[in-house]
Amino acid sequence: MATSPPFVGRLASGPRDAISDVAGVTVGHCTLDEGAVQTGVTVVRPHAGDAYRDRVPAGAVVLNGFGKSVGLVQVAELGVLETPIALTNTYSVPAVAQAQMRACIAANPESGRSLPTVNPLVFECNDGFVNDIQRMAVTQAHYAQALAACSADFEQGSVGAGRGMSCFELKGGIGSASRVVDGWTVGALVLANFGKRSQLRYPAGRGERRSPNSETGPEQGSIIMLLATDAPLDARQLRRLALRAGAGLARTGSVFGHGSGDIALAFSTAYTVPLEPARPMPAVALLHETRLDPLFEAAADGTEQAILHALWRAQSVTGRDGHRRATLSELP
Amino acid sequence: MATSPPFVGRLASGPRDAISDVAGVTVGHCTLDEGAVQTGVTVVRPHAGDAYRDRVPAGAVVLNGFGKSVGLVQVAELGVLETPIALTNTYSVPAVAQAQMRACIAANPESGRSLPTVNPLVFECNDGFVNDIQRMAVTQAHYAQALAACSADFEQGSVGAGRGMSCFELKGGIGSASRVVDGWTVGALVLANFGKRSQLRYPAGRGERRSPNSETGPEQGSIIMLLATDAPLDARQLRRLALRAGAGLARTGSVFGHGSGDIALAFSTAYTVPLEPARPMPAVALLHETRLDPLFEAAADGTEQAILHALWRAQSVTGRDGHRRATLSELP
Amino acid sequence: MATSPPFVGRLASGPRDAISDVAGVTVGHCTLDEGAVQTGVTVVRPHAGDAYRDRVPAGAVVLNGFGKSVGLVQVAELGVLETPIALTNTYSVPAVAQAQMRACIAANPESGRSLPTVNPLVFECNDGFVNDIQRMAVTQAHYAQALAACSADFEQGSVGAGRGMSCFELKGGIGSASRVVDGWTVGALVLANFGKRSQLRYPAGRGERRSPNSETGPEQGSIIMLLATDAPLDARQLRRLALRAGAGLARTGSVFGHGSGDIALAFSTAYTVPLEPARPMPAVALLHETRLDPLFEAAADGTEQAILHALWRAQSVTGRDGHRRATLSELP
Amino acid sequence: MATSPPFVGRLASGPRDAISDVAGVTVGHCTLDEGAVQTGVTVVRPHAGDAYRDRVPAGAVVLNGFGKSVGLVQVAELGVLETPIALTNTYSVPAVAQAQMRACIAANPESGRSLPTVNPLVFECNDGFVNDIQRMAVTQAHYAQALAACSADFEQGSVGAGRGMSCFELKGGIGSASRVVDGWTVGALVLANFGKRSQLRYPAGRGERRSPNSETGPEQGSIIMLLATDAPLDARQLRRLALRAGAGLARTGSVFGHGSGDIALAFSTAYTVPLEPARPMPAVALLHETRLDPLFEAAADGTEQAILHALWRAQSVTGRDGHRRATLSELP
Repeated sequence: MATSPPFVGRLASGPRDAISDVAGVTVGHCTLDEGAVQTGVTVVRPHAGDAYRDRVPAGAVVLNGFGKSVGLVQVAELGVLETPIALTNTYSVPAVAQAQMRACIAANPESGRSLPTVNPLVFECNDGFVNDIQRMAVTQAHYAQALAACSADFEQGSVGAGRGMSCFELKGGIGSASRVVDGWTVGALVLANFGKRSQLRYPAGRGERRSPNSETGPEQGSIIMLLATDAPLDARQLRRLALRAGAGLARTGSVFGHGSGDIALAFSTAYTVPLEPARPMPAVALLHETRLDPLFEAAADGTEQAILHALWRAQSVTGRDGHRRATLSELP
Repeated sequence: MATSPPFVGRLASGPRDAISDVAGVTVGHCTLDEGAVQTGVTVVRPHAGDAYRDRVPAGAVVLNGFGKSVGLVQVAELGVLETPIALTNTYSVPAVAQAQMRACIAANPESGRSLPTVNPLVFECNDGFVNDIQRMAVTQAHYAQALAACSADFEQGSVGAGRGMSCFELKGGIGSASRVVDGWTVGALVLANFGKRSQLRYPAGRGERRSPNSETGPEQGSIIMLLATDAPLDARQLRRLALRAGAGLARTGSVFGHGSGDIALAFSTAYTVPLEPARPMPAVALLHETRLDPLFEAAADGTEQAILHALWRAQSVTGRDGHRRATLSELP
Repeated sequence: MATSPPFVGRLASGPRDAISDVAGVTVGHCTLDEGAVQTGVTVVRPHAGDAYRDRVPAGAVVLNGFGKSVGLVQVAELGVLETPIALTNTYSVPAVAQAQMRACIAANPESGRSLPTVNPLVFECNDGFVNDIQRMAVTQAHYAQALAACSADFEQGSVGAGRGMSCFELKGGIGSASRVVDGWTVGALVLANFGKRSQLRYPAGRGERRSPNSETGPEQGSIIMLLATDAPLDARQLRRLALRAGAGLARTGSVFGHGSGDIALAFSTAYTVPLEPARPMPAVALLHETRLDPLFEAAADGTEQAILHALWRAQSVTGRDGHRRATLSELP
Repeated sequence: MATSPPFVGRLASGPRDAISDVAGVTVGHCTLDEGAVQTGVTVVRPHAGDAYRDRVPAGAVVLNGFGKSVGLVQVAELGVLETPIALTNTYSVPAVAQAQMRACIAANPESGRSLPTVNPLVFECNDGFVNDIQRMAVTQAHYAQALAACSADFEQGSVGAGRGMSCFELKGGIGSASRVVDGWTVGALVLANFGKRSQLRYPAGRGERRSPNSETGPEQGSIIMLLATDAPLDARQLRRLALRAGAGLARTGSVFGHGSGDIALAFSTAYTVPLEPARPMPAVALLHETRLDPLFEAAADGTEQAILHALWRAQSVTGRDGHRRATLSELP
């Protein structure tokens, strides 16, 4: 097997082929690797400032809502992010949401008093095959570590929230990629934890399809797909962009399984909306709707590429009850 | 002023004029009353069994999504509840969600392993005017107390999650009511924390409208409206029913303010859906769509009545920084 | 009974107390009054130009989707209007949609060829009680007449699409109103065709509630609520504004009946989006989200007022099989 | 090139490999082939009875709403079909909707009087490249012909509504397929009119990807994807099923282009809901949610296969201004 995945599509990637090719976007991990605890937190910051005070526009789409993410109700209503985006395991969502609240209060002591309450935004997948999810091992300190670690250069694979994740019953986790088109960059970052072995189609669009093997029970996976762009889009357009992550996902073999939380969120770094009404609103000339098609292609290709990166870059992990996920490279 | 609110509408109430007139539905509170901590938890149980194993159908509608509730994504996808419904303050949502997870795991040790992860369902309003919300004072033990206290007979007003809530800048909190029509019961329970004084219209449909007084800043309230019924409805029909809570809310004077999380959820006790696919699915003859109108009237009237009960039954509370909310009865 | 309805709320109206108080918005009717044919078309133009080439932002909300309106799928996706808004009876929707297509093609011969197809936008209510709806009497010429008649000064009541409509089992039809707040105008126009007599609450917020009389069958009504504003809002914000029309509707007594198509759409005249990508996109500084509350109040009050105007200004109509709707003023 | 497309996936097809493998489902075409008029109507009947009186449950999903379909608002609200499903070109939607109304009135003279108005359901794609769409050539009679022609055996390719459609800038049109799993059948029928040549990936999952050629302008296509099943699903579950058509679509190369109306609708033949409330409602034991995954796979595979059938079975058509679409088999 090739040591790196095929390159998806006909568009060029950015210099890092990662979400941080969108200027200002950084990613940090905190990885827990202690016996049956194989999990973690990953944080994506849209910019270096205070996300609560300077809000980036965002739109999300739920392809399959078997998921316990928090924060999407308010994103749908107001169309902005108020915190960095956090990823973790299903049963650690409350701890991370609470950590986001505390971080916001620490920086903005009037949050929830004279200023509005903050909307935490935490996505999750169930890493219960290798991680002892019932321990709820992730703490406020782990979130803080991931936040502090945010950098344009970051690891992929079995790190952060990706530590315990599975993909096509192989080792999955964090993957990222980017595409550049018409002068704009679209970056993707996935937490890949979906799929049955029999569904795997790789290399994408060129590869052989594996014959079905005995299924090991219903899918209990999920995938979180984050897109960043520097193109000037509003929340409605970003929701449209987010949906195209689903096209990339489908090309890897997923049919958006019943038990999978398949959620995509896209944000733009082209402008910010101020918390305080006294500050001026940005005068934004949005991208004309007919110019979205190349970005849609970038979103689909970037997401597919990010999934392949997660598969190729993951390292084998052994955790709870000796459960071990093999990597793609171990396949015969 | 009358010591009890006007009776809303032309339908009869159930014997308790409360959500527990729907057979099997119970409500419990845990109230925190310690200086600046004026808050709590309220739990609504759809039946006496394990909500994770025997799931009632449910549908929700977000009238205004300035809210941090958790669990709605999965309710929208799967159309069932998996836990009792919990109400608390905005910054205590994570603690309560975690408590729900732990309670489910305690009763179902395979949850998140061979069984699916549970979907916590926690709604919130911001009681920050009288409660020091930043303390995140609610703990797992408080949730357990509220759950253990569940009974068909329960208090209303400044109790449980309603302890610190404000409504029309008066003291709000928990209110409940019920209506009976065509042999079905529709029960309502609200956590009322919305509105500016100038919007108050009471007694509903008959009262005088107050002249505008000086506004004290933008609304940062919310209202959670829960409906229960014994009519055999599915998730789509329950979503329709839930929307009619908004009609009752509007009649009290609300215009679904920007900063208010106005969310309604309806569930039916007529049947349950089993967790395990090996158990038989219920053979349900749903109510014909054209028979919904009387239930819609019951939902609107019951919600309006529940809000009036919250206002009439609330007791004055003094909390953070000496902030005090007067009751409706104190108005000149 | 008073010869004019009570004034709703505490905000001032514009000079006409009509949707045309929003500069540039005009309304035209074509009324069919021929025995059993008691129906028509009403057109609302957002500006004097070509709506296909210069698109105003718009957002819609379906409170109850028992309706056959056309065009909402594309409004939800793209967030703009492409035609004037047309109102008519349920079974005349196709004829009016076709008329809108032909009008667009006549002005833009490349529509559907090198230019995109146009999205007709036609709303409807069922005026079948007094109008012989099965005749599908409305033609392309009637749409053209209504379009040509558009003016800032227009009639209300039993005119245009309102000719055959009923409201609370009284004569309904077209009503309009406006409110001015913070320097912005919000105009409302309704096609009021909903409600049972027993639900009527008037004068709004002050009146007596009628005792239930014998119902005459299930509601088969509808209401279309259009809002215009000169405030700089985008599609997401306009959808939020549109929802508040529902608060005004509820205050008149509606519970959004099962058989009623209750749909609201809001548009802004503050800027336009060009059809052609070669033309520059507008650089818009949107209204800060926290400044929406006064507009929400204006939307609710304006809608309620428009409904009252429809009731007060309607004239009695006799049509199919001698069916006659009495006016509000005829009530004892 | 092979004379038949590759077989998609690992599930077996039904005997016809067509939507009519779902018992009772029939399809009929009326094809217009007269110079610049290259278009038509296709009708899908869910059963042999009156769809207005005996309603099948249905759910739809809009992947991209650049579309002028009519009827989806009411399907979303009520979860049932009331007419056969009709497919045609964009500018013929009104004529076909009107034809559906007239057909319903002819069979049910009280429709729109004592009985509710009927909800026409017409989907469309823009065949304007080879068809002179501005002529609005489709009439009520053509709809009647397509309806009368409905049969379990039907043609695919450049017939009915597919007559003028393009797919990947090749000749597209009508395609159908089916898959059988767990004793249930899922049938698919598509009106395929989407995609740029550069996006084509065939044979699916195995084929070579074409290098980009010069694009001929933005996509103005669309695809309508219909799914039928005999599994007992409700509207919510059917909406979930419909979404999986999008996975099949994505695997053919589509990224759900901006100018493409990508809409999927699924219905079940397992039970019907009566128009009249006096008739008994069916007592339905729905499929347990965890049993949906095989049906999701069938929906994705069936949709992909149906698209391939549309490409392989289409015949070249020359129409407006001598525009001609080549078939896939003509590719070098």
